[in-house]
Amino acid sequence: MTDQTSLKKLAGYRAAELVEDGMVVGIGSGSTIAYVIEVLGKRVAEDGLKIKGVPTSDKTRRTAAKLGIPMHNVDDVDHIDITIDGADQIDENFAAIKGGGAALLWEKIVAVNSKRNVWVVDGSKLSDHLTHYLPVEIIPYGADQLFKRLEVKGYKPTWRLDQNGNPVRTDSANYLIDLHLNKMPDPFTLGRELTSMVGVVEHGLFLNVVDQVIVGREDESIDIFDAHPLPLV
Amino acid sequence: MTDQTSLKKLAGYRAAELVEDGMVVGIGSGSTIAYVIEVLGKRVAEDGLKIKGVPTSDKTRRTAAKLGIPMHNVDDVDHIDITIDGADQIDENFAAIKGGGAALLWEKIVAVNSKRNVWVVDGSKLSDHLTHYLPVEIIPYGADQLFKRLEVKGYKPTWRLDQNGNPVRTDSANYLIDLHLNKMPDPFTLGRELTSMVGVVEHGLFLNVVDQVIVGREDESIDIFDAHPLPLV
Repeated sequence: MTDQTSLKKLAGYRAAELVEDGMVVGIGSGSTIAYVIEVLGKRVAEDGLKIKGVPTSDKTRRTAAKLGIPMHNVDDVDHIDITIDGADQIDENFAAIKGGGAALLWEKIVAVNSKRNVWVVDGSKLSDHLTHYLPVEIIPYGADQLFKRLEVKGYKPTWRLDQNGNPVRTDSANYLIDLHLNKMPDPFTLGRELTSMVGVVEHGLFLNVVDQVIVGREDESIDIFDAHPLPLV
Repeated sequence: MTDQTSLKKLAGYRAAELVEDGMVVGIGSGSTIAYVIEVLGKRVAEDGLKIKGVPTSDKTRRTAAKLGIPMHNVDDVDHIDITIDGADQIDENFAAIKGGGAALLWEKIVAVNSKRNVWVVDGSKLSDHLTHYLPVEIIPYGADQLFKRLEVKGYKPTWRLDQNGNPVRTDSANYLIDLHLNKMPDPFTLGRELTSMVGVVEHGLFLNVVDQVIVGREDESIDIFDAHPLPLV
């Protein structure tokens, strides 16, 4: 049986093949995307591939720039041809939960500015229903009060803490709360409820976003699913 | 005819009378609220008034603290008895636009955590319909792309700039865009649309928030209106 790391590598390498000369490429975050960045860096260095990269996190920006991929702010490009990112969990309707790596806000900003969104995952990330904890990015001022309000709603919030026990700060200097829902209600309704709450900046539900999902399977095969999302904005 | 400054003072002094010993008081921002802070500071210093203040902006925190009002973070109190704030414009349904002073996010955070919200304005702020420009607080990453999206929607955005021509940073370090709508659509629908846009943190529509509006009139009389808001959250 192939381990998860190999599957991520397999799927990541396959996804990197979608990138063509001259493209503006949104580059996601996380352990699977690390393999995409690795291949893109190699193609830039060895094959003279010309691309512009747009990062979904400061970490991705640094990693990609180190490998020689020219990185640009999302506001410094006039479009993004394709964004390749990971996901924490994807359901059968191609709804996903993202944000385990704390980058959900920038990931969503880059996604809505992309002509095409591709998610790369190993098979363990697919699920009939969304059961993963749901990250929510929130404004620090009033964060404790918002936490209490989420508790009252029964959403079982927990703070995302760093190794010193302090609240994690996102790349936009906000806090993260993770919701541990017993059962995911309709994700569209939940998403609207969360964004309407004062102090919530963004949530980790990615609905009607993805165009293609690339899955690395345990038998080392690759599945590619075409989704047909409605425009998110 | 009494000038606007006198009317703000008149209404501000009247509003400060609502504050009683032992209360936790949300203290708003802006030129009218400056008079509320002045009176509260005087009562604390001269009459031994005991209150806890919760600021809606860093500027209010500094001003009030200088006058000896003990100021606390919204997360360091277990409730707020009353919040007194201003408004840029209030319509006949007690919907308001706020944010001209760049403090809309913290103002809304304090408001939703308050048992009672009072707005203090001079008569020029009342209007049949909302016609004031609408401030929207947004995440800096992707701000130019979001601006373009608001332009495409026909919302005529402009950047809020400081005197050096740089984007204003709010107390949460975000940017502000002002929308110049030809005609305000249904504010509830518009509010939901804006909060659902990726990169929007909060907008300046305050709907179902206020409990009481205190108005200073040109004949130096005071009008007090009781609103009956639904809970915002």
